[in-house]
Parts: sequence; structure tokens; C-alpha cells
Amino acid sequence: MDNQTAIDFELYDRVRPIRWDGQALHLLDQRVLPFREEQVVCTDSDAVAHAITELVVRGAPAIGISAAYGVVLAANAVEAANGDSALKALEPAMQRLHDARPTAVNLAWALNRMGDTLHGAGADWREQLVAMADRIAKDDLLANRRMGVLGAQMMQPGTRVLTHCNTGSLATAGFGTALGVIRAGCAMGRIDKVYAGETRPWLQGARLTVWELAQDGLNPTLIADSAAAHLMKTGGVDWVVAGADRICANGDTANKIGTYSLAIAAKHHGIGFMVVAPASTVDMNTPNGDAIEIEERLPTELLSVGSVRTAAEGVAAWNPVFDVTPAELITAIVTEKGVVHAPSVATMRELFPQDV
Amino acid sequence: MDNQTAIDFELYDRVRPIRWDGQALHLLDQRVLPFREEQVVCTDSDAVAHAITELVVRGAPAIGISAAYGVVLAANAVEAANGDSALKALEPAMQRLHDARPTAVNLAWALNRMGDTLHGAGADWREQLVAMADRIAKDDLLANRRMGVLGAQMMQPGTRVLTHCNTGSLATAGFGTALGVIRAGCAMGRIDKVYAGETRPWLQGARLTVWELAQDGLNPTLIADSAAAHLMKTGGVDWVVAGADRICANGDTANKIGTYSLAIAAKHHGIGFMVVAPASTVDMNTPNGDAIEIEERLPTELLSVGSVRTAAEGVAAWNPVFDVTPAELITAIVTEKGVVHAPSVATMRELFPQDV
Repeated sequence: MDNQTAIDFELYDRVRPIRWDGQALHLLDQRVLPFREEQVVCTDSDAVAHAITELVVRGAPAIGISAAYGVVLAANAVEAANGDSALKALEPAMQRLHDARPTAVNLAWALNRMGDTLHGAGADWREQLVAMADRIAKDDLLANRRMGVLGAQMMQPGTRVLTHCNTGSLATAGFGTALGVIRAGCAMGRIDKVYAGETRPWLQGARLTVWELAQDGLNPTLIADSAAAHLMKTGGVDWVVAGADRICANGDTANKIGTYSLAIAAKHHGIGFMVVAPASTVDMNTPNGDAIEIEERLPTELLSVGSVRTAAEGVAAWNPVFDVTPAELITAIVTEKGVVHAPSVATMRELFPQDV
Repeated sequence: MDNQTAIDFELYDRVRPIRWDGQALHLLDQRVLPFREEQVVCTDSDAVAHAITELVVRGAPAIGISAAYGVVLAANAVEAANGDSALKALEPAMQRLHDARPTAVNLAWALNRMGDTLHGAGADWREQLVAMADRIAKDDLLANRRMGVLGAQMMQPGTRVLTHCNTGSLATAGFGTALGVIRAGCAMGRIDKVYAGETRPWLQGARLTVWELAQDGLNPTLIADSAAAHLMKTGGVDWVVAGADRICANGDTANKIGTYSLAIAAKHHGIGFMVVAPASTVDMNTPNGDAIEIEERLPTELLSVGSVRTAAEGVAAWNPVFDVTPAELITAIVTEKGVVHAPSVATMRELFPQDV
């Protein structure tokens, strides 16, 4: 990490999806990006829960941080002499926050940290709650910067990268995971060119990733997901950098649909494939990718683009949201705890001796 | 071809993009499919040229056939005692048809056949012109049926197929090339399941392929292009069946962007990859794929879906229209002249001893 201090992180990290002003939570409305930059201002916890449900804010870390500030807002309506009685009073609001997105692990994790803070807290429980929300946000940002440097250190000067989906400032407290590596690589002068796949069916790449990288002057180039292999063949890519939704004990990784296809193509062309995710994404209790159930969503998401119907009525579609990339296709997994090179049961266990 | 006679081709081939009623050319307007079935009726050759330019009709064979009937329509305005004087009078109209789509090889080829028919023709030159247009259309349909059977004969009962772009009835006189193999496979009881990739950026799979297969009751299932590898991994595909825009002397094949990615994934999973195209697509003068220049089109096609903008203004995009699949990833090339298994310079030369 020697050269971390020499990096001006903020130069390449201007976008913030979440801002707490001491009174209200300002969320950058990701539903209307990239065409309008609008803030949704939440002054009570139910407004935060609603914003999470309605995808004003998205990305697991960003959702968790928003929920933490949602608890702070809920505390405005509570009078309590100590943390434990505050927790009791806050439980209904915390439950509504929890239920805002049923499957987001970070949401429950952030709410648990807020609850734990209240256990045994004294008269200053309110201040402790604010401090914990601030810490969750700050820890996320620092972890992303650390991952960014660890990942970028694997790259040579002149590197061309390809990323998928949105794993950026918009999905986190800032800097991003896979996009954090790209930001750090640009700041460290190692990355010359950034490509982003549009990421059908939700087009997070087209709508969010190229927008946020453009805000930082990183000149991204959008490609069709299906053009990635041709780009690799014609010498346009040195590293594929992707995020993760779950990493198994053997290094198998679930991520946005299309990641697996990129990993196969990268292997075919002898190109590095890097997974970047916080240690909280590692699930040592899931032995391998076969144990991961892949969510399939409604065909309508694929039969339309946004609100515009593109396929005939009555046609069937198969719409898996994630896929699993086996460890043997992954060059390295980057977490804030360190890097697992050539992931396997053995190399994963060195960094994660037990469930984290 | 023994079992070809037993196949009811028409049962699985209801869509016709082109209909000549003896007086006018009726073109199914592919710009408004799959939402509206409208015919553009052309009663003179300039209307045909305009329809080709405006993509009312698309697909190289379908364009060639339309142009041939365009010459027939142009002849209505010509009085001539024999073929050679008719040809002279028809030249301006034929030039306008030729210029309707500058790069379509089939267009020039069909016009040349029409011109050759006129050379030395007597007073019945008008009837000979109609007969040649009919023959170009019929030969295309018969070639497609023959390719369909040759390709389907390689499949086992219960086969699941994945196709890309639109290579169907809509792109030809009928039956299609890659979709012809799928139609024949269904008619022969060998195909149980048909998947089609949506084919960004133009969405020919979503807009055209699943529509035309649905017309024939073949129950296609649409997938995101990026979901193909996951579908293969989860056991959903036995053969990938694709068309071709150009096939080189060594078997390297240029086709719609995304084909190469599918071929790599098919190889990775041990799945067959079949290219289906008429012999006119084989270019024995192009030694290999490195000699093919890949057309790159405007970024706007990728920054929008149809007329709906999806990416931020000012963002760059890279939009290659084709890619090259090297011969070593291709299991077989199916033409109406026969099948080249494991394409290479040697096996290609067996079927195509010289330029065709």
C-alpha cells in the first residue's frame, strides 16, 4: 500500500449516491440517470425505505449505508433514556427498512450493526447511532480504495480494461469495487483505456457506468455485451474487471449475467480476469457455485428495453439475473483483506481461514 | 436427402417477406415487425429500390430477389424488340436498384443474372425476365430447404438449439439458412427447444427471429446475448446454429457481432457450432479471417435502443457490426452443395475446388 498515499483518490471519484447533511439523507435518483441529476431528500425513515424499494438507490453497499441513515432518521421520533429502550422503539422502523429489498445481504448487515450499537448504550445512544452510520459509510469507502490499489497494482502501464454492470461510486459509499480498481489504475497511470459492456437487460453499463466514469473524465467507451470477445481478439483488452454478488469457498463467483461469458472469452484469449468485492461477499459456507441458486426474473425485462416493447407479444424469454464463473477462469479475487491469486479451496482458505 | 420428400416444409414456413402477384411486388414491412404486419406494394422499380434502401426488406437473399422483380417492374415502361435493346433501356433503373444498398453482394449478383437473361433474348425477353426472377426466388427457397435437411441430419432427437440474429424466412425467399436448419430439425422431430439471442444492437433476434418462429408454432425462447454461456453451462444447448456473411478459403467465417463469442462458449462447453450459408457466401479468394475488414457503424446505434436514448450524451461507443469466427471453433459449414466438417483449407477445397 506504499503508493496509496500518493494517489489523489478524489480526483477520480466525484459522484456520490448518498449524502447525509446532519438532518436529512440526500439520494441521487438512479432511476433518472443519466439524463437528469436529481436528489431525493429523505427526512424520515419510511422515505428511505421507499427510496430503497423504488431503486432510487441501488447496489448492495449503497443500500446498506442508506438504511443505516434511515435508522438515524427514525431516532428523531424516539425519546429514550438509553440504547436498549431506543432499540425497542426503533424496531418497527428498522423492520420496514429491512423489508425494503428482501434479498440484499448488506441491508440486514448494516441494520444489525446499528442495532448492536444501541445494545448497552447510555444517554448518548443518538450520537452513537450517527457515528455508526458515518463509520459504515466511511469503512466502505476506505475498503473500496484499498481494493482499488490492490487490483491496480496487478496491472502494467498502458493497460486496457473491460468491465461489466455497475460496481462504481453509484453502488457504494464511493469509489466502487471493480470500478474502484479502474479508478485507482487510472490515478496510478496504469490504465489507458476503459471499456464498459452495456449489460442487458437492465443496461446498468449504458445508463450508469459510462455516465459515472465520464463524470470523472475517464473517457469510457461503451460496447455491446456480445462485442467483448471481438474486442479481446483484436487486442483491445488486457484485463476484465468485474464485481461479485457471492464468492464461494472454492473461489467460484456469482455475478451479473454475462460475467461468465466474459470469463470464458478472457481465458480463450489469455487475458486476465479479476473479481473485486469486499470480504463480506465471501461466503465460506457455500462450497462451490453449484450450491448457488440463480434468480430468474420476469421475461418482460427482456422483451422490452425500458418501457419500449421490442419483441412480439406472447413470446417466451428466459431471464436469469446472475451466472456463476468457476474459479479456474478467475486470475485473482481482490478484497480489502488482500488478494487471492489463482483461487481454489486452498488459496481461498489462506485469506479466509474461517467464515467471515 | 432421402427423407427430404417426407418433410412437410410448408408446415413450418408460413412467413413470406416477398410476394409477386404478376403485376406488383408485395413486401412485408420489416421495419414495423413484430408489432404490425403491413405490406408495402411496389408497382414500379424505383419503389422497389426505395424499399430496399429503407430496410422494408432486408437479408441479402431477400434483397436480391426483390431487385430481380424490380427489373421486371422496370420493363413495364420499356418497349423493345429484343433483349439487348431492352437491357439498354433498363440500365438506368437497374443502376438505381444496384445503388439501393451499396454493400449487398446478392443484389449485384441478382441484377447480373437478370442482365445476362436479356443478352441475346428475342421478342419474348419480357417473359424470360419474369421467369428468371421466379427462378432466383425458387432456387433460393430450394437451396434453403436442402441446407435445412443437411444441417438437421447432424442432430440427434431431443436437440436444443441456440441461434443468433435473423437468418430466416424473412431474410430469404423463405425457410431461411440457419433458421432453415432449425425448421427442418423441428419438422424431422429432432429439435425440442429453440433459443434465440436478442442480437444487440439491432435486436434482429428479439424483433424478427422469435416473431417468425412463433408464426410457425415453434415456440422460441428469447435470451440476452450475454446469457448464452450460462444457458450452455446449465445444459440448455446442444448446437449453436448461425448464418454467415462471408466464408473464407480456410473456413474462417464473418457473421453478425456476437457470433464469435457464442463459438468460443460452445467450444468451452463441447457444444457443436454450425454455420449455414449458401455457396455464394463462400469466397475462396479470401484466404482467412484476417483479410476481412470489419465494418464499424455509428456509436448512436449502441447509445440508444430504437429511438430511445439509453446512455448519457457525449459518451463514446465502439460498434463493430460483424466479427470473425475462426475455423477451429466451427464444427461444420452447411451449404446447398454439401457439408464441410471440421473446416480447414483442405476440407474446404474438397467441396469448393475453386472460387464459386
